[in-house]
Amino acid sequence: FDETHSNTQSLSVDAENLQKQIDELATFSDTPAPSVTRVLYTEKDVIARRYIKNIMGLAGLSVREDAVGNIFGRWEGYEPDLAPVASGSHIDAIPYSGKYDGVVGVLGAIEAINVLRRSGFKPKRSLEIIMFTSEEPTRFGISCLGSRLMAGSEMLLKALETTVDNQNISFIDAARSAGYAQEENDLRSVFLKKGSYAAFVELHIEQGPLLEEEGISVGIVTAIAAPASIKVDFKGGGGHAGAVLMPHRNDAGLAAAELALAVEKHVFDSGSIDTVGTVGILDLHPRAINSIPSKSHLEIDTRDIDEERRNKVIEKIHESAVSIAKKRGVRLAEFNIINQDPPALSDVSIIEAMKSASKELNLTHKLMISRAYHDSLFMARVSPMGMIFIPCFKGYSHRPEEFSLIEDISNGVKVLALTLAQLSLK
Amino acid sequence: FDETHSNTQSLSVDAENLQKQIDELATFSDTPAPSVTRVLYTEKDVIARRYIKNIMGLAGLSVREDAVGNIFGRWEGYEPDLAPVASGSHIDAIPYSGKYDGVVGVLGAIEAINVLRRSGFKPKRSLEIIMFTSEEPTRFGISCLGSRLMAGSEMLLKALETTVDNQNISFIDAARSAGYAQEENDLRSVFLKKGSYAAFVELHIEQGPLLEEEGISVGIVTAIAAPASIKVDFKGGGGHAGAVLMPHRNDAGLAAAELALAVEKHVFDSGSIDTVGTVGILDLHPRAINSIPSKSHLEIDTRDIDEERRNKVIEKIHESAVSIAKKRGVRLAEFNIINQDPPALSDVSIIEAMKSASKELNLTHKLMISRAYHDSLFMARVSPMGMIFIPCFKGYSHRPEEFSLIEDISNGVKVLALTLAQLSLK
Ligand SMILES: [Mn+2]
Ligand SMILES: [Mn+2]
Ligand SMILES: [Mn+2]
Ligand SMILES: [Mn+2]
Repeated sequence: FDETHSNTQSLSVDAENLQKQIDELATFSDTPAPSVTRVLYTEKDVIARRYIKNIMGLAGLSVREDAVGNIFGRWEGYEPDLAPVASGSHIDAIPYSGKYDGVVGVLGAIEAINVLRRSGFKPKRSLEIIMFTSEEPTRFGISCLGSRLMAGSEMLLKALETTVDNQNISFIDAARSAGYAQEENDLRSVFLKKGSYAAFVELHIEQGPLLEEEGISVGIVTAIAAPASIKVDFKGGGGHAGAVLMPHRNDAGLAAAELALAVEKHVFDSGSIDTVGTVGILDLHPRAINSIPSKSHLEIDTRDIDEERRNKVIEKIHESAVSIAKKRGVRLAEFNIINQDPPALSDVSIIEAMKSASKELNLTHKLMISRAYHDSLFMARVSPMGMIFIPCFKGYSHRPEEFSLIEDISNGVKVLALTLAQLSLK
Repeated sequence: FDETHSNTQSLSVDAENLQKQIDELATFSDTPAPSVTRVLYTEKDVIARRYIKNIMGLAGLSVREDAVGNIFGRWEGYEPDLAPVASGSHIDAIPYSGKYDGVVGVLGAIEAINVLRRSGFKPKRSLEIIMFTSEEPTRFGISCLGSRLMAGSEMLLKALETTVDNQNISFIDAARSAGYAQEENDLRSVFLKKGSYAAFVELHIEQGPLLEEEGISVGIVTAIAAPASIKVDFKGGGGHAGAVLMPHRNDAGLAAAELALAVEKHVFDSGSIDTVGTVGILDLHPRAINSIPSKSHLEIDTRDIDEERRNKVIEKIHESAVSIAKKRGVRLAEFNIINQDPPALSDVSIIEAMKSASKELNLTHKLMISRAYHDSLFMARVSPMGMIFIPCFKGYSHRPEEFSLIEDISNGVKVLALTLAQLSLK
């Protein structure tokens, strides 16, 4: 692997087995196929975790878990005191989504280990595969829970003490029911020191249409757009849909509708194609056809590769929330910026390693921005970071139609294997 | 009672007993006091029906039930071949509501019979007290089920063959479990011929704040606003909240937000204070903060006392739904007008009878519109109709805080008794 020309021919992915694993993992779902729903610490999540640990074991990795269920599979290098090189992603899936998001970066990374073993490679730095806990915010409203905690977020540590899901089950109780967080106050043990890894590389489907449209095999990510999440509650007078005349209404539902449209407007007003904003959750209470909504709840996601521009959009959304509440006589009971993360840049030496791996493998590549966030966004705080994208059907993600060709996945696994090998030897 | 001046002094309501009955009936509930939840054909509903039939029997009424459980208690007049005069309301209660909505018009009407008996009155036309089945749409999504069927709705008759609740229990099976609908195909027997009653008068809490605010004892209803319900579904492309750039979106949630605001606009544009419109339900799918909504579902309630004006609003809402879908590149998958009932006007001679009864009793009264619908809306199709409103605390209804003073209830019972007496003698 010092002379990669001679070795790239020997990199063989067991595509059939990898596809079988992707399909099997997808059956651990709370909704019927082709959709996948796998939510943190549920029965299906626990079964899926067992499945991953088993595959890690079969790949000869030594497996351990931390207090929130981040899973680590390690292949010891011949210089085990050096900081290891890591790769990984997540396997949780939002309701009614697909089977490739995250999964490709976990099963694919384990297969990259198999590829390297079969080729006769011996790592100098240890290689570690990580399955991160709850990249998706489904259950507790916190995205990248596992990697964010690994990156040492004191705010998250604090929040986890009191966080509950919508069934009022606490994070701690949920974690315990899945066999984690058994000791009191040990969540801090999840924190990693800066420099714990020499490099972190994540393989992921693009979740956008560009690679497929342009017929390019590999996307090399140079930056991850910065996401922010906002929760908003309006409270109004409610009342009977027949009895309360229009001028006497303080309709919390219509306030929410106006704010949703204001989010779209402020995003367009930023003038940049890279600014996006979404209202994915809009709940009304009491949710009856003959009741005026007395409460509404929105969850807003906004992202940009330019942190300042994104923060300006958040300010505008806040101004709109205040003025809509005033105009409609409702109360802005909550405007809570849940997270407002900075964007992350890939490490130059990792970009170079990914580029050279693609070239060695005779694969076309393209430098690109990740508009979705990933655990890599947080791993970048403790380690140099890079990401490899592969094409996916029409850019679909977070829906049952999500799909990547096994040939594209296998190319990604090879680029990952070669990149990990190079970084391991540094 | 031909010379009412001499008889009104003898009208005495047993207020203590009436309050006791209201409180007792409230204990037949599936949720804890002070809330009341009593759903069609459940165990608590069956017990409550038994309670009502028992009180009817104690009032000397002869009791019968029809195939869906409308309950009739009859006091035979001395000219029993004349069409009777009827009064009544419902006792079913939506989840977590109160103990006066409907109940006052059933127990109060039976007490009005007691009042007349004690005063020595003899009816010429028979008097009938009716407890209607399922005024509330809770279980089967059909409001005023009993009275709507009595009014001869062929559409409802048809629908009941296949209607199921959210546990997939059919209407027929549920009715049978409560002891009704025993014979095949006998639901048609519930239909009443036009003219079956000489008059129908319903006593009800106002469910609005006006009587209490203005310190007026009795509301005399001149018209019941016409409700219509619409279900709307939009379908869009969905996708990842980070990855799909704004120009490529077909956001079904924003289409719903726009339509909700369009409903409000079209209602205001009608130019009449009597037009109302409400979006009480707005659901997004997949309902995740980082997913663009791929589906949205709205339920819209719109009412007016002018049917044509209300139907024009519905047309405008439909036009907006079509143009919003077109503009946003989403599909208007459903625009379903679930019901579109005509409004009802009270009968002039019944209004006069209620007015003169109020005056005889030295009670202040006010002509008003019922903006909530009632069984009277459907009874108006088979009989001249009138309604008596009494004040209720802050206009609260459909919530545990619903409350009316027993003095106000007693006044309503007296006005009802005197009105029934007058109409019986015609
Ligand atoms: Mn995802
Ligand atoms: Mn992912
Ligand atoms: Mn009601
Ligand atoms: Mn009612």
